[in-house]
Amino acid sequence: MRDVALRAGVSIKTVSNYFADYPHMRPETRARVADAVAALDYRINASARSLRAGRSDMIALIVPELDQAYFAELAQEVIDAAEPFGLTVLVETTAGDRQREIDALSGARRQRIDGAIFDPLALGPSDVEHVRTGFPLVIIGERQFDGLADHVLIADLEVARVAMSHLIETGRRRVLMLGGSGHSPSHTAALRRRGCEIALADAGLPFDERYVSAALPWHRRAGAEAVERALADGLEFDAVLGFNDALALGAQWALIEHGLDVPRDIAVVGIDDTQEGRYATPSLTTMSPGRAQIARRSVELLVDRIASPERAFVSVVADFELIRRRSSGRQDHETPLTTPNERPDR
Amino acid sequence: MRDVALRAGVSIKTVSNYFADYPHMRPETRARVADAVAALDYRINASARSLRAGRSDMIALIVPELDQAYFAELAQEVIDAAEPFGLTVLVETTAGDRQREIDALSGARRQRIDGAIFDPLALGPSDVEHVRTGFPLVIIGERQFDGLADHVLIADLEVARVAMSHLIETGRRRVLMLGGSGHSPSHTAALRRRGCEIALADAGLPFDERYVSAALPWHRRAGAEAVERALADGLEFDAVLGFNDALALGAQWALIEHGLDVPRDIAVVGIDDTQEGRYATPSLTTMSPGRAQIARRSVELLVDRIASPERAFVSVVADFELIRRRSSGRQDHETPLTTPNERPDR
Repeated sequence: MRDVALRAGVSIKTVSNYFADYPHMRPETRARVADAVAALDYRINASARSLRAGRSDMIALIVPELDQAYFAELAQEVIDAAEPFGLTVLVETTAGDRQREIDALSGARRQRIDGAIFDPLALGPSDVEHVRTGFPLVIIGERQFDGLADHVLIADLEVARVAMSHLIETGRRRVLMLGGSGHSPSHTAALRRRGCEIALADAGLPFDERYVSAALPWHRRAGAEAVERALADGLEFDAVLGFNDALALGAQWALIEHGLDVPRDIAVVGIDDTQEGRYATPSLTTMSPGRAQIARRSVELLVDRIASPERAFVSVVADFELIRRRSSGRQDHETPLTTPNERPDR
Repeated sequence: MRDVALRAGVSIKTVSNYFADYPHMRPETRARVADAVAALDYRINASARSLRAGRSDMIALIVPELDQAYFAELAQEVIDAAEPFGLTVLVETTAGDRQREIDALSGARRQRIDGAIFDPLALGPSDVEHVRTGFPLVIIGERQFDGLADHVLIADLEVARVAMSHLIETGRRRVLMLGGSGHSPSHTAALRRRGCEIALADAGLPFDERYVSAALPWHRRAGAEAVERALADGLEFDAVLGFNDALALGAQWALIEHGLDVPRDIAVVGIDDTQEGRYATPSLTTMSPGRAQIARRSVELLVDRIASPERAFVSVVADFELIRRRSSGRQDHETPLTTPNERPDR
């Protein structure tokens, strides 16, 4: 950190603030530190640090499952982000099971790792004692432990609002919402549903409970089944908003199976920007939650927390972006697509 | 193991052989042990074992990358297979880099884990010393360390031969092969290419080097680019065989982008049976390499190796299966598909 501070012409405290994503930093200062970090290819001397502190140089990433593309891609991003710090990532899965989430944070596990990045699904407000242990912990995507740990948040409400507004702006009026049950225990689902409500209200459109499906778990199959039920029930809809890409891709598959044209008959939009959606036919319009940024910030916050156990907890909200692809093209086939369908990155 | 042996009416050695997938066991005996295992919901008493042996109850899974669906799904299967043994899986990625593969097997890492399941990409015959360390190790899918560790193998030659034969039997004659460069360092690529050669020779068809593309790395993008090059070169082909699903799905995407109909104009077949292929449009015909079996056998072999460090090395070849879906339907649209396109598992 000293080298970075010297090169950037700032204090060591400022460099520390940079890694902690401290909000009150002038953009020029932030840019100077970023340049210095890049120039020095900043790499914490792992072995020296281990000797100094008896650390394992291992951190855990705790996610519900790896065979969902979102979590697999997040895991790879976290592994890549941890590598420059000399940290090995132990990836653990919980299947969204409360006891397994608690076990993953247990004292026995904590003895073997320096800290953990945790994407919880089942833990609720009554589980505060498992989170507030003093052990270095960064929580991704769940707000209910605000103030008890460092957080990297997805702007769930805004993400869903923008996705729904995109559908409304491209002429859709009756949007099937997959994953938004009011009874879901997940804050994410409730926030995304609320974002949809806001977008509909802003456009003067009604929110109709029949258009919301729990679609649990958020896998392709649940998306396909929800669409099949809606078609069987004779529900009229001109778009599907999946609360993740897997639901949207399952829905798209079922629509095409039933002889419907996507996007001419029904538009489909997802949330996550998984690689699969880029190569789907038609390619999937989706909200990119800034997964690389989430991974990088999570690792940086954790590294900083391990070094400075006493600093105040911070919450970072990741940027997001609407990725327009073919699945939400206009119904009017004469109108060209807003963006060409260029070959995706990989 | 004693309980299993008692219940099955066999010796403890026989139970041990069962878990080691010992080849010379009578089917009835194997079935008896399997029934006893299932009946007892066999679960090694993890904490007792740890106390006994100073073990960590952690094993490593070392794979090239997690944002390829094949490895992510394999990782989830290994985690699920390890859970009944009370083992936590540390997932490590190497990006297929030789030094990172060596590091993952280094002494420092080995102190923290009881054993490792390793899917190597870069290690070659000159790296034998890194494999032959006496440390419990199960190698997946690579034959060159035969006799130096326990192996779980994919029948690469046969898998590719069956995939190519399927295309020939459904009327295809000029098959673009993606991933089969003769210069590839990977045994897998060479074996799959050889399997294609055999299928073509058996059908009296020529093997034309122009129809083989290295398509490295085996990602969707490389599959798309290989197809675009073939189209630009004016190469005439009526099918694409991707040496993994990602290459096949990238190829399918590019074909559809160029206004071609899959399967009417060009059939597409992959290898891996990733979940993505099931929900692709058209759904992807692929070879299922028995991933769940690979994961289960790998964990069982490793558990047994940890318990019995001195037993002889064994090699298990996993079953495989052709999964016919729409992407390789007959060119004649009047002919019904051989199998209905039922909703996949998830």
